[in-house]
Amino acid sequence: MTPLPIVRSVPVLRVAIAAWRREGLTVGLVPTMGALHAGHLSLVTLIKSRCDRCVASLFVNPKQFAAHEDLGRYPRDEAGDAALLAAAGCDLLFAPPTEVMYPDSFSTSISVGGVSAPLEGEKRPQFFGGVATVVAKLLLQSLPDAAAFGKKDFQQLLVIRKLVADLDMPVEILAGETVRETDGLAMSSRNAYLSAQERAVAGRLNVIMREAVAAIEAGGAIAPALARAEADIRTAGFTGIDYVALHDEAAFEPIGTDALTSPARLLAAVQLGATRLIDNFPVTPDARA
Amino acid sequence: MTPLPIVRSVPVLRVAIAAWRREGLTVGLVPTMGALHAGHLSLVTLIKSRCDRCVASLFVNPKQFAAHEDLGRYPRDEAGDAALLAAAGCDLLFAPPTEVMYPDSFSTSISVGGVSAPLEGEKRPQFFGGVATVVAKLLLQSLPDAAAFGKKDFQQLLVIRKLVADLDMPVEILAGETVRETDGLAMSSRNAYLSAQERAVAGRLNVIMREAVAAIEAGGAIAPALARAEADIRTAGFTGIDYVALHDEAAFEPIGTDALTSPARLLAAVQLGATRLIDNFPVTPDARA
Repeated sequence: MTPLPIVRSVPVLRVAIAAWRREGLTVGLVPTMGALHAGHLSLVTLIKSRCDRCVASLFVNPKQFAAHEDLGRYPRDEAGDAALLAAAGCDLLFAPPTEVMYPDSFSTSISVGGVSAPLEGEKRPQFFGGVATVVAKLLLQSLPDAAAFGKKDFQQLLVIRKLVADLDMPVEILAGETVRETDGLAMSSRNAYLSAQERAVAGRLNVIMREAVAAIEAGGAIAPALARAEADIRTAGFTGIDYVALHDEAAFEPIGTDALTSPARLLAAVQLGATRLIDNFPVTPDARA
Repeated sequence: MTPLPIVRSVPVLRVAIAAWRREGLTVGLVPTMGALHAGHLSLVTLIKSRCDRCVASLFVNPKQFAAHEDLGRYPRDEAGDAALLAAAGCDLLFAPPTEVMYPDSFSTSISVGGVSAPLEGEKRPQFFGGVATVVAKLLLQSLPDAAAFGKKDFQQLLVIRKLVADLDMPVEILAGETVRETDGLAMSSRNAYLSAQERAVAGRLNVIMREAVAAIEAGGAIAPALARAEADIRTAGFTGIDYVALHDEAAFEPIGTDALTSPARLLAAVQLGATRLIDNFPVTPDARA
């Protein structure tokens, strides 16, 4: 297989994309932080089902990590990632060094209000500002027809949709389904941190969350279902819970009553030793009928 | 003369620009808040010297006004503006209603650090955030090859250059020279607020600033030159001074010594009754030689 072309500067990226544009080809983008798994690769497949060419970006964005978070140990394997991307049908890898993305004089930030405030926004106050800023840059560097993000990071997906809508970015945002291990654990680059013992515990999160979804969709009261999930998460061996919450998908506000009338999302963030895991599932109101 | 076509929605704007793009034409943008004068029209001329087609936008951006400022009384005359633009060679006017630019759900803001902090940034804390957000939207709505801004709003020009560089917007920012009345008063839509008596006083600002520039370029010490300018401004009949300051053009930091070694800008903001006026002039270090 031909090695995947890798570019590291914005002008060279634009030359490559402009050549495709002159041929009348459409172009899609898959932004990643590397350490790729089948979830990322499914986004390449999604883009290639819609666009003639797929660019993936690989940039571990320091602006979305707080000082105490795992920027320094975040897994990195560019050569391995490039081989996976090529096999998945990706056409070009954009892997800029930090000084290309954030030169010393860099001083602009983007804030997306509303949807970025609760849950991850409360627990990781720097996170969505860093995500919005780097995604805006990546979209403006490549000006793709479409860009794909995973539903695994569901709130992030909503923040990016809001960013793109509010700033009138001419790009379609595609959402990829969460890809799971055989025991249902959502694939995540951070799963690599887990010890064998932790990995066994991690597989319980999705099971507990599915039970809560089933209970709520069967007409059960919401607050007890969430409390039961939290209790089960602790019993399973997780070491901390950031949140287990039910939000409506439109305004992304917590559902405060037991009357589930619109599509909702059950979201959880838990701690397992030194690793933070998140997951989410749709909750469908008319499943009660 | 054919009336200037006016569009009010982003999709219609994009259709018009896409038709030009298909013909291989280049497109430039002149963002305005209307109440056009010869300064704005010179930006249309500047764009038409570089691009095949010129789009002007007319939007009085509420986000760059504070509650106590003059949003409500800001002069508006769309029909008159459209006639002036057509005569100047503009090809299309984009005049969106507020709900197109800021629907109720709008929640994104852009902050440009550094250059936006001093002077106007101190006196009008909401101003540059509002400017950056609306200019980003206008640039992303139209994706022009170039956009033109006047040096009259010199700090704003620097903020926009920084915004475009930091977010990798694929557009060239062109700067238009300040256009002046016969007595040297910088043209401004806000000059329309001045009474006949105030108008006579207003014409003194540029004269006093030019005297300070000449004194500094002749080797005079900076601090006394600025103090003299402030005293002269008060004597002339202005009712308040927000700042009279000398900043270097590169980092836009105040020049704290009397050794002027790089290109600088003398900037002033003054109050005249209910009207706020700003102006600026280049100060050239090697003019001393």
